[in-house]
Amino acid sequence: MSLALEVARAAKEAAAVLATLLSGVKNAALFGMAAALRRAEATLLEVNAAEVAKARAAGRGAAFLDRLTLTPGRLRRTAEGLEAVAALPDPVGEITDMRRRPNGLLVGRMRVPLGVIGVIYEARPNVTADVAGLCLKAGNAVVLRGGSEALETNGALAALLGEAAAAAGIPKGWLGFVASPDRAAVSEMARLDRYIDCIIPRGGEDLIRAVKAAATVPVLAHEKGLCHTYVDAAADLAMAAEVAFNAKVERPGVCNAMETLLVHEAVASAFLPPFGARLKAAGVEVRGCPRTAALVPGVVPASDADWDTEYLDLILAVRVVASYEEAVAHIRRHGSGLAEAILTADHATAMRFLREVDAGAVFVNASTRFTDGGEFGLGAEMGVSTQKLHARGPVGLAELTCTKFVILGDGQVRQSQR
Amino acid sequence: MSLALEVARAAKEAAAVLATLLSGVKNAALFGMAAALRRAEATLLEVNAAEVAKARAAGRGAAFLDRLTLTPGRLRRTAEGLEAVAALPDPVGEITDMRRRPNGLLVGRMRVPLGVIGVIYEARPNVTADVAGLCLKAGNAVVLRGGSEALETNGALAALLGEAAAAAGIPKGWLGFVASPDRAAVSEMARLDRYIDCIIPRGGEDLIRAVKAAATVPVLAHEKGLCHTYVDAAADLAMAAEVAFNAKVERPGVCNAMETLLVHEAVASAFLPPFGARLKAAGVEVRGCPRTAALVPGVVPASDADWDTEYLDLILAVRVVASYEEAVAHIRRHGSGLAEAILTADHATAMRFLREVDAGAVFVNASTRFTDGGEFGLGAEMGVSTQKLHARGPVGLAELTCTKFVILGDGQVRQSQR
Repeated sequence: MSLALEVARAAKEAAAVLATLLSGVKNAALFGMAAALRRAEATLLEVNAAEVAKARAAGRGAAFLDRLTLTPGRLRRTAEGLEAVAALPDPVGEITDMRRRPNGLLVGRMRVPLGVIGVIYEARPNVTADVAGLCLKAGNAVVLRGGSEALETNGALAALLGEAAAAAGIPKGWLGFVASPDRAAVSEMARLDRYIDCIIPRGGEDLIRAVKAAATVPVLAHEKGLCHTYVDAAADLAMAAEVAFNAKVERPGVCNAMETLLVHEAVASAFLPPFGARLKAAGVEVRGCPRTAALVPGVVPASDADWDTEYLDLILAVRVVASYEEAVAHIRRHGSGLAEAILTADHATAMRFLREVDAGAVFVNASTRFTDGGEFGLGAEMGVSTQKLHARGPVGLAELTCTKFVILGDGQVRQSQR
Repeated sequence: MSLALEVARAAKEAAAVLATLLSGVKNAALFGMAAALRRAEATLLEVNAAEVAKARAAGRGAAFLDRLTLTPGRLRRTAEGLEAVAALPDPVGEITDMRRRPNGLLVGRMRVPLGVIGVIYEARPNVTADVAGLCLKAGNAVVLRGGSEALETNGALAALLGEAAAAAGIPKGWLGFVASPDRAAVSEMARLDRYIDCIIPRGGEDLIRAVKAAATVPVLAHEKGLCHTYVDAAADLAMAAEVAFNAKVERPGVCNAMETLLVHEAVASAFLPPFGARLKAAGVEVRGCPRTAALVPGVVPASDADWDTEYLDLILAVRVVASYEEAVAHIRRHGSGLAEAILTADHATAMRFLREVDAGAVFVNASTRFTDGGEFGLGAEMGVSTQKLHARGPVGLAELTCTKFVILGDGQVRQSQR
């Protein structure tokens, strides 16, 4: 039996027990996991340091090494995160929509765990604990497969967390870790639909493509963020400058940062010259359409590819549009479905944008940077889904569950219909 | 450009318009479609009769020919079905969970269409109209690919319904029909994730397996129904006999019929002999475990394969179990996740079963035959999902939509956190 299969089978068995555990047991386990992380700090940092040194020797870049590195501060925040998840309300067991049918049957929906969640991720070790904590709170078993260059760190974390949870009464096998550097383990996991109920790939476009192509397990995809901000003809330009600047500059390397700014032609000559100067002062490279170039000095002419590029950097594509409709059409064509924003003082236009723009999060007069489970009040998140099936936008605890129908009768039988 | 790609692209364009239409427009289209079906009855029956004759000449069996055949009665019920869908409340546009965040942002969820739904089905022509009507009401465009032996009938239906809807103001391209007998069109459709948001395969296990293996589009799978009914030690045996008989006999050829009966040993000798006689009188073949065979004359010994077989026929597998736990373990191992029932007068056991059994519909003291969107009060259904992601159990209008986050601000920007 392959490693992935063995791990997934054990997780499936654990999931049946886990689904019925009361919140108190799960919360105690989360606190136990946090405590274990704090106790094992020195060991974990040591295992990680050796792995970081190996990756550095292999010539990995600074950004990769940064993501791979554990620090006392990161470990502390991870432990605090587990305690914060314990404090969230337990979604499991809620019964809603219970209605009495004409034949007397009571039909309702009960919220239940998804079962076994497979998570395929890259080098960041903190994902191991974040994902394990959220899945546990929602009553799910989890099968983790992290990047091969973080195998030692992730393996140590998974073993530690699994033992701490077991000590608090969580069934063994709940936290499965596929400790194989072999890429084939990824596609194998994605085909274990008898044991895994959902696969969440977290990483670059190539990883997500590969998982989707191989999978028979349902996938909850988190793809790129190509977010637009549209400055409408009726925008408050001072507010627009603050919000658009924040969306680009506050943290450019994340998926909810703005990549393209669209500006209505009626306000372009008032808005773009000062905004362009502010971007320049902040070190942002502007790639613009010809009309943008005419208004902002030093603009690099945008190529077609720019409208489809997630820079994740201090680069911004800027286009002047002739109308609201042109802005929405541009978003429809180039947006990735993560987050889109309009800046306008006109109520009817704002309401139209909310309805007409298709994305996980649609903003009026606020920065796309708020696209985050914590900011939305979900407590924590597994990531941001860009698909439409099951979950769209930040994926919180509720999105790690589903509902089943529960039906209470007193002997009802179905009548034949001809 | 291939046919499937062309159809899917046109559907995607139509979907953007369709998503914003008001209910009145969609309802008028549904009434127009129903009227068109009634007007074209003679033509449709003629096209269908030729196709049925061809299938008969090709040696197709009676059940297949029955599913393929249109009759005046079936067409009438299909038209009535479209009118019933028009009468259902429109799920699109509902805004829920709108909450004010500490920074003043209003964050809520808006219910929106999925976009483009691909449906891959087999020979039943009534599926064409049922699916088109439900998708339209939920604001979705649809790409249909029916079985090759019903190509003429389905094509005529799709053209008729598409034109009737267009006459009522629905954008052209909304109802796409992939009129290709080539099986390759199925896997091609399943990979058009740029244009299709969700694929629903309706048909046999082979079809569903093939779609899941090929798909990069998220799949909403409707697999087999291997439903159990468990007669608990505390069951009211008279009620149990009525409910179990109904679950098996009322319509054995459908997915929510019972395939396996589990009986607690404490009541087996009281329950099984008379129930076995009643089954025999109704022409049901019983395949039983040794303890069943000792209580019921004429039982065929069950093989291991019987516990995993969806008979869809007047055949029932019967097993005597030593405990509630053994019954639940049997269901966990052999159930398909569609519907499971317990018959018991004991409240605590009933509540435990509701929590512990993992299926789209879990029944207490009622027939699994009620697993149906109409019976559950959803108004109508696309089928019954056996997966956990997105929808579990009957798929109604709400399950043909998703939610996006809508966020209303007045200039909020995100503060840097270090």
